[in-house]
Parts: sequence; C-alpha cells; structure tokens
Amino acid sequence: MTKFDVVGVGNAIVDILAKVDDAFLEKHELPKGGMSLIDEGQAQAIYDDMPPAIEASGGSAANSLAGIASLGGSCAFIGKVKNDTLGGIFAHDLKAIGVHYETAKAEDGAATAKCLISVTEDAERTMATYLGATRGMTTNDVDEALIKDSKILYLEGYLWDEQHAKHAMRKAVEIAGQYERKVSLSLSDSFCVDRHRAEFLELIEEGVDILFCNEDELKSLFETDNLEVAIQKISEKCEITAATLGSKGSIIVSSAGTISIAAGQNLNVVDTTGAGDLYAAGFLYSYSQGKSLAECGKTATIAASEIIQHMGARPEVKLSDLLDAA
Amino acid sequence: MTKFDVVGVGNAIVDILAKVDDAFLEKHELPKGGMSLIDEGQAQAIYDDMPPAIEASGGSAANSLAGIASLGGSCAFIGKVKNDTLGGIFAHDLKAIGVHYETAKAEDGAATAKCLISVTEDAERTMATYLGATRGMTTNDVDEALIKDSKILYLEGYLWDEQHAKHAMRKAVEIAGQYERKVSLSLSDSFCVDRHRAEFLELIEEGVDILFCNEDELKSLFETDNLEVAIQKISEKCEITAATLGSKGSIIVSSAGTISIAAGQNLNVVDTTGAGDLYAAGFLYSYSQGKSLAECGKTATIAASEIIQHMGARPEVKLSDLLDAA
Repeated sequence: MTKFDVVGVGNAIVDILAKVDDAFLEKHELPKGGMSLIDEGQAQAIYDDMPPAIEASGGSAANSLAGIASLGGSCAFIGKVKNDTLGGIFAHDLKAIGVHYETAKAEDGAATAKCLISVTEDAERTMATYLGATRGMTTNDVDEALIKDSKILYLEGYLWDEQHAKHAMRKAVEIAGQYERKVSLSLSDSFCVDRHRAEFLELIEEGVDILFCNEDELKSLFETDNLEVAIQKISEKCEITAATLGSKGSIIVSSAGTISIAAGQNLNVVDTTGAGDLYAAGFLYSYSQGKSLAECGKTATIAASEIIQHMGARPEVKLSDLLDAA
Repeated sequence: MTKFDVVGVGNAIVDILAKVDDAFLEKHELPKGGMSLIDEGQAQAIYDDMPPAIEASGGSAANSLAGIASLGGSCAFIGKVKNDTLGGIFAHDLKAIGVHYETAKAEDGAATAKCLISVTEDAERTMATYLGATRGMTTNDVDEALIKDSKILYLEGYLWDEQHAKHAMRKAVEIAGQYERKVSLSLSDSFCVDRHRAEFLELIEEGVDILFCNEDELKSLFETDNLEVAIQKISEKCEITAATLGSKGSIIVSSAGTISIAAGQNLNVVDTTGAGDLYAAGFLYSYSQGKSLAECGKTATIAASEIIQHMGARPEVKLSDLLDAA
C-alpha cells in the first residue's frame, strides 16, 4: 500500500503572467509558444518592458500535482526553491492544495526561479524562464522513501536542461525501478526534445511507462513531419503515450491501439499556460485510480479545459467538482 | 496646463487573493466585506491557512490610478514600498500601465505592505492588511510639484489609519488648495469611517470637492440608517458625492440634485475586489475630461463592471477599448 498516488520531480517556479502583443515577443526574441532559458539580466530586461502582470505558482510537474490534488489524488513534489519571497509563495500554494512538499529550501545562492509568461491575444503562452534556485537541486534532494511510497513517479523533461537535475532524475528513475513503480515523463517542449533527443529516447525505452507529449514534441523526438510515423515508432518504445493535439483533442497510444479523445467543447480560451500539465494531471489521477485509458483521457481533457479558460496554470476551482459533474 | 489628470496618494500594497468559504472568515475573525489591519504574525497565520492564491498589485488609490491610465488618462502616484520583491512587483505594475511613480523606496524597516484577500463564493471580498512599509510614508514623500501639476488630487481614506500618512494627506490637501486643484477623497470602508468620523467630516467640509463612498460608508459618516438623510447631509457639505449602491447601481449627488446611474447588466461577478476603486477611476477620468456628471457615472460603471468579473483589482483589458465600445 503506497501513501501517494503520484510523486513529481520538477522545477519549482513562480509564474509572472502578462498579456502582450506579438511585437513584444519579436522585440525580446522569444520564440512564440516555446520556452527560452534566460539569465537574471535578461529576466530583468524583459520584466521591465512587460505590461502589468499577475504572479501565480507554476512549474510544469508542480502544476500537474496541484491538478491531481484538486481532483482528489494524493501526491508529493520534489523541487528546489530558495528561502525568499517567491519561494515562500511557491511552497504555500503547493502545500495549501494538499501536496506533500518538504524539499529543503536553499538558504543562499540564486533566487527562486521565475517564468515570465507572455500571453498573446490568441491565448498562446510564450515562456522565458530564469532557473535560479532550481539549478541547485541534486541527487540528495531525491527522497527514496517518497518514491517508494508512490504508485507513479512523474518527471518533467525540462529538468534535463540542468546537469544536477538530470542526475537527480536518473536517480529517481532508478529507485522507481527498484520498487517496481510506474514511471511517467512529460517531454515539456519541442526545443527541449531537440536539445536532448538521444537521451530522452534512451530513457523512454529503458524506464518510462507513460509518456506525455504534444504533436510537435512527438514529431521532434523522431525527427519526422509525419505524425503517423511518430505514433508507430513511439508505440514500439513505450507502454502508453498520451499526445495532445491542441484543438483536435488528444490520442492515447498503447498496445491496445490508438484511442482518440475529443477536445473540450464551447471553451472560452484565455491562456493556454499549463494545458499540457493539467492534461497529465487528469490522466495520472484517473490512471492511479485504475480507470481505463479512455476514462483517463476524458479526465485529462476536463482538467486541461479548466486551466485554459483563465490566466495561470493552477486550477481556480475544485477539479473534483468538475469531474463529479461530468 | 497641468501635466497629470490625477495624482493619487495611497497605500502601496500587493494583494494576495484566494477563494475561501465563510468558515475561513469566521475562524480568522475577519468581518465579511471589511478591511482589518493585522500585524506580521497575524498575516503569517492567515496566509499559512489560506488556499492557493494569486498575487496582484493592489492598494485602493493605486487601483484607481491604474484604471485611469487604462482609460487613457495621465496620472501619478505617491505611496511607499520597501526595496524588496513585492515592492518591485508593485512599482513595476504601476509604471507598466503608465502611471508616474517615483516615491523613494524604503531601504530598511518593514516589508512592502500586503493585503490578504479572501474571496467568498458570493464574490464578496474580505481584506486583512499588513501595512508594513506604507507606514513609513511621511510629509517628505508628498511632492509639491506633482500636486501642482495635476488637475485633481485623489486620496484614500485608509491613509487616515496612520499618523504619518494622515499628516502627509493633510499636507497634500493644503498644497492642492494653494494651487486651486480639485480634491477628491474615497471613504474606503465603513469601519474606517467609524474610526475617523469627526476628522473625515471636517476634512470633507473644508477641502473635499468630490467624495466617493458606498451606502454603508455614507450612512456611517452621519450615523444614520436612512440613506435619504445621509444624502441630504452630504449635499450640504460637499460639491459632488458619488455613492455606489452595489447591485442597485450608484447615485451622484450635487447642487444639481441627485442622478441615478444603473448598475452594469448581465455581469458574471467573480470577485468584487476593487469595485469602488475602479468606479472612482472611471468617474475621475471622465470628470478630468470635462464630461457631465451623468457621463462620469457611466464611465465609472463600465470600469467597475470590468473589475468584478475576474480575480484581482487591476484591469485585465484596456478600459479605453471598453469605453470606446460603449
């Protein structure tokens, strides 16, 4: 009997969200829809030029865990903040929704990570991330007992951008293997896939049971423009792959074939930040409850649909209420 | 020729907003719909118990100025933050919307002020404010040139809770009188009126041209349960009084009699934080453009209607677009 449904390892980040126009992205050379890593000076320059913003806790895996908790699941998070104002906000928001979070805060060094999120009128989000304190995460932060105590280990691909974090992830996967826990990975971003393709493919083949990605990430993984080819290839490497296709909904690929899940209907899409994270949340919650893959896809869609109808990547309402209503 | 339409003096605060139930208010002894002043320890205790939150710049007069700027007006703000993370956020958000803000930041002492805002399911907001660095504002921060350069001086009643800030306000009113500028005051809160009734009445009679209040504040000012009596009394003391009446709309009392302004229609009311502040913003913007009182009331209603349909007290869209559309 495990204590948690899911333990997540990811970057601990506070989001700073503002509505901008496309010219803002061009001026700051931010590839639309992507995630760019920036240093402190770039972060200040972009922020100085940003319209009024709101702050809300973020981080890809952390958003997913907040979603799982909001659906009624039990979960834990491993990720690094500094003992500063934004670090306090991040920890508060995660614990307040019921996620177990005890990773030691850094007492010195870089500030808590922040992600400057530019939301354009088409509701697309473009991210510029200052990793700060998250870069201080090491294998020491990976608590073996937490992984042993969880049905599923969930990792965000973004962690691969940092050597220390990568080692921490590898250690987590090793521990999960040791205790026969399921391992799930989110590919995070097509540019991230591009940076780490060979290692991701190796990791997926050796240790990942459930893969989350979108269409671009899946195509990038196999360097193909043909989604069908990518689906065929991933089905040979991974037990379950859930791929989001934007307004076309999503597909779930497994040995049982490919299931199509319709997108949410009649949505007032405001900000797509966190759409993939909350899709993973819904999927993992239902999966941990022993539901069918089709049901997992439906819950995933409910969670993702909530998040894209307001600013920010954390649920504004109790997702379990939405699930009960559906 | 003045440089600014409005210069505001107020508390410089970052809001921390979360959705709670009524039991939360009872547990923390927060009078529903009101504003309680709390110390650092109380702030921590309430925050520790609060659900996941978002952070957004606030402060009553500062919210109004953000609204005026969003409508296309020019304005300046006087208020005190510390040189810390929340202080940086507050300054950024105000300057980014185009408000002139150059009050010196405190380098030591208490942290930037924060307001813990509990939003209940009925969209009512209940505030608990840690004044922190705002208490460091003194008469030295009141820049004579700014007041001389503005058509209207706008003050929030909340400042009256602090001796130093009160002196700063009195100095601002004196300077405005010297240069024959209009003076506007928001009564802020019925409990605040209760704490400072005699001084408010004296200030209104001697120096206020435009008074903003809601029904409770107006009744409290004259210690009456009868709105008609309060209207009669205020008409004898103040040139223009704009009183909001919640879902019943608002009234504008002047020597020309009382005008009724209908409330916004078909609104999806989510969070009433900033409703009064944005009402004042719309009114002052139109007034500074030489519009009729009826037109001032209509712009006020447009601005207030926008703010209550989302979380937070700063506009999410350009209010000038809404005004053009109306």
